Amino acid sequence: MFAGCPFKILEKPKFVYDGKWLKMREVRFRKCDSSQEQVWESVHRRRVPQSKPDAVVVFATLHRDGKKYFILIKQYRIPMSGMCLEFPAGLIEEGETIEAAGLRELKEETGYTATKILSCTKGKQSLSPDLADESISIMMVEVDGDAPENKNLKQDLDDGEIIEVVLVECEKLLSYIEFICTEVYVDSMVYTFALGMNYAQHFR
Amino acid sequence: MFAGCPFKILEKPKFVYDGKWLKMREVRFRKCDSSQEQVWESVHRRRVPQSKPDAVVVFATLHRDGKKYFILIKQYRIPMSGMCLEFPAGLIEEGETIEAAGLRELKEETGYTATKILSCTKGKQSLSPDLADESISIMMVEVDGDAPENKNLKQDLDDGEIIEVVLVECEKLLSYIEFICTEVYVDSMVYTFALGMNYAQHFR
Repeated sequence: MFAGCPFKILEKPKFVYDGKWLKMREVRFRKCDSSQEQVWESVHRRRVPQSKPDAVVVFATLHRDGKKYFILIKQYRIPMSGMCLEFPAGLIEEGETIEAAGLRELKEETGYTATKILSCTKGKQSLSPDLADESISIMMVEVDGDAPENKNLKQDLDDGEIIEVVLVECEKLLSYIEFICTEVYVDSMVYTFALGMNYAQHFR
Repeated sequence: MFAGCPFKILEKPKFVYDGKWLKMREVRFRKCDSSQEQVWESVHRRRVPQSKPDAVVVFATLHRDGKKYFILIKQYRIPMSGMCLEFPAGLIEEGETIEAAGLRELKEETGYTATKILSCTKGKQSLSPDLADESISIMMVEVDGDAPENKNLKQDLDDGEIIEVVLVECEKLLSYIEFICTEVYVDSMVYTFALGMNYAQHFR
């Protein structure tokens, strides 16, 4: 822990709160050329595999009747006290590969079975690095909406989940988001992906 | 709080930890058709304006000598215990507009002065909605690297910050990220933006 840290860590980090799912940590530190002591508080999941990212986020396109859609989900998020538009995602279970977790979460949350894995990121991507040590991997998949397994969809949600599946035509992602972003919390990854697409199309 | 919530909230939410910067909240709830009680823990900043997003994230392109670069930052993040590659970003101060905060943070963290604001998202975008109520706005700006104010750059960092500015040629963003993603934590927004660009270029 703290390998390569450019700050001077002043005492052993303390866990100041230990909950059912989350822990809160307090680190006292200072810049090496400063005498001013600082404290950095952060949140850490209690139960995640150390060697892998905590979770996988699935960017899935659905191909149906010659059209292409992004598979998004809308769900009420208790931490936010409101509705969020997100990519399907979930924690990676012990012993599970990132890819297996992504396919499982996509199916559980949306009912869809992916036909093809396009890519999966390596390493760990931070989500909110000034607040938490949470990390993810991003998997891109295609779903054949005309395949028999994608005809009668059935979600498999747990007791903390109520999820609505939202299909958005790929070309219309940014305009859809701009339309609803003051009514629901559009997750930053969804918005950022749409801005990346738009940037490549118009600003190169 | 909890307007439109599809879950049954079982008691008044409790703040179970109250730190210097962060609070931890515990909400007891159940699905309306289930008797199983659940608890959702989440983290909340103590000092942020309620009406605006907590923070602004700045997607900046630098134009210099006929080339285009993304302005990224690399910094050691104590919550992650490691180096992160991120977009410049920071908290919005009381009474400050989102745009003013974005321009200020870009200048403080990188030294660059933006020449043009291209866009700024409305509403609030969630960052990690199963863990926190943190929210952001995303601002896209251009920086004229040949302008006099962008010649002798000077960062203005606070005592918790040590920041290295990283310029990446726009066209090479994804390949750069794929090269370093097992060595540093590439922030999910940086990775997602690159994947969005790549998607628009190759998968449409």
